[in-house]
Amino acid sequence: MVRGRSPLPPSRQIVTLAGGVGAAKFIRGLVRRIAPHRVTVVVNTGDDETFYGLHVSPDLDTVTYTLANLVNRRQGWGRVDESFTTLGELARFYGKPWFALGDRDFATHLYRTDRLRMGARLSEVTNEIARALGVKSQVLPMSDDPLRTFVKIRGSRALPFQEYFVRGRARGAVERIELRGARRARALPAVLHALRTAAATILAPSNPFVSLGPILALAGVRETLAPSRRRVAAISPIVGGRTIKGPADRMLRGLGMAVSPLSVARLYRDIVGVFVVDEIDRRYAGLIEKLEMEAVVTDTIMTTPSKAARLAEVVLRALEV
Amino acid sequence: MVRGRSPLPPSRQIVTLAGGVGAAKFIRGLVRRIAPHRVTVVVNTGDDETFYGLHVSPDLDTVTYTLANLVNRRQGWGRVDESFTTLGELARFYGKPWFALGDRDFATHLYRTDRLRMGARLSEVTNEIARALGVKSQVLPMSDDPLRTFVKIRGSRALPFQEYFVRGRARGAVERIELRGARRARALPAVLHALRTAAATILAPSNPFVSLGPILALAGVRETLAPSRRRVAAISPIVGGRTIKGPADRMLRGLGMAVSPLSVARLYRDIVGVFVVDEIDRRYAGLIEKLEMEAVVTDTIMTTPSKAARLAEVVLRALEV
Repeated sequence: MVRGRSPLPPSRQIVTLAGGVGAAKFIRGLVRRIAPHRVTVVVNTGDDETFYGLHVSPDLDTVTYTLANLVNRRQGWGRVDESFTTLGELARFYGKPWFALGDRDFATHLYRTDRLRMGARLSEVTNEIARALGVKSQVLPMSDDPLRTFVKIRGSRALPFQEYFVRGRARGAVERIELRGARRARALPAVLHALRTAAATILAPSNPFVSLGPILALAGVRETLAPSRRRVAAISPIVGGRTIKGPADRMLRGLGMAVSPLSVARLYRDIVGVFVVDEIDRRYAGLIEKLEMEAVVTDTIMTTPSKAARLAEVVLRALEV
Repeated sequence: MVRGRSPLPPSRQIVTLAGGVGAAKFIRGLVRRIAPHRVTVVVNTGDDETFYGLHVSPDLDTVTYTLANLVNRRQGWGRVDESFTTLGELARFYGKPWFALGDRDFATHLYRTDRLRMGARLSEVTNEIARALGVKSQVLPMSDDPLRTFVKIRGSRALPFQEYFVRGRARGAVERIELRGARRARALPAVLHALRTAAATILAPSNPFVSLGPILALAGVRETLAPSRRRVAAISPIVGGRTIKGPADRMLRGLGMAVSPLSVARLYRDIVGVFVVDEIDRRYAGLIEKLEMEAVVTDTIMTTPSKAARLAEVVLRALEV
């Protein structure tokens, strides 16, 4: 199962449902074990935001930059060898910025916005960007329609995700997650097709509420996964009672759930047959199996690409791919 | 007539009609002799172009950057201390660029485009940009409406100005200048007001066809200048049979006129009472005076800001300001 020597027929893709940084790390490992062109990544766009008139898709960009080997590996998002000259100048007009957009990164947002204004769909533009940056995997936004994630924290109005997470630094007790537009937004047809025909589907270790939640909220996604849940795996984003990155732990707590892999497994009960937890959380394996899931215990901390590849290998083996 | 000690009442402005680089050099001199807040610059927008989905106004930016002391003085346009990271990345999506947009410069275009999309008028946005960059003079686009300059060269279709000038490096025999939209475009009301109430008006040494031509083509502009032509001066952009910068000489030739200050003076005959030529063109003074213009002979080469200030002083004196 090394790159370019996969036993899968070409049509049978490994589909990964992805948020941003955690998902990208996993996918970097995955494409060391599966030929990149056999990897399809379905990416959350609920965090998309307009900055300076430009359509910014943080999760799409994190996944694409990672697959293109252009990501800033230290921080996990944004471009490597980045500068912030334009952002500094924009401060003259807009005041102090709170969302880091680099000079290289701006090119992506300019192109995306330009193409969308010409009438192109987000999925087309995403594909064009991926191709232009040399990505061989298929990168699909979950939808071409707007679905926006809002986070309601105590004592505040509901905030768009980036305002809550980046501007507000994820402070405050989370009371509610709102997926605005979820009813009207249609899953990308290519996403439903990919899920239907996949050799296996993997839910990356992303936030279950604001990263994978929006994807799973789209009509047809859960319904497509459920009948083949034995071929669907999820990797817990909760390790040892907290998240590696992001506010999933605070959200679980705020929404009244225990900060444990078990809470996440319960959210995926209907659609996931294989649930992967870190060795530190071995004690949850029995409880997870009671959810009629196979519990896989392994090292899930992806501090290096080769550790990510090892994790991918364990997941693929459990899925019998 | 030094800065801050002008004999003019505050309401009486010195208005300059301006293209890009040559005009900006002159204005830099002018604001050394007249308090900057008493200077109003009316700027050509016929060269405006859309790049990467952004509204770029090259002449407005050249004038504004110059007045803000942020211009790259060596080249006369663009920002000082500039980098081109975004442009380099855009090449991945659009192919090799032919119009230089720097990282600092991009901030201006982003802001302008964002505000225009919100429904702001170009004149409002131009004012906001000037204020944000610390400019004390009034910078007015000639119009809020689109008027686009096209250049027809032999053996080619008519090209938008930037394609002719920058992409095509002003090659080819000019057969015709087209000012598309000139009939529908209205002069900015503030421009007509400024011209009506000005202490004096100066036509900068800009291209008479593609820089000042579009301004003068707007209904009401020539009509407003004509009755007070004794208070209107023009500086010849033709010096010693050629231009300092730009294609005015090639255009005169292409359109069948002699490349001389006299040809330019004739174009302004109805609206200009004082015509300034360089010492090298002293021999044209008599012919210019036959056009019922006062001919002023002086050093018009603005190699330094203090030489530009000296030129401004001569022009102001001739206008009895």
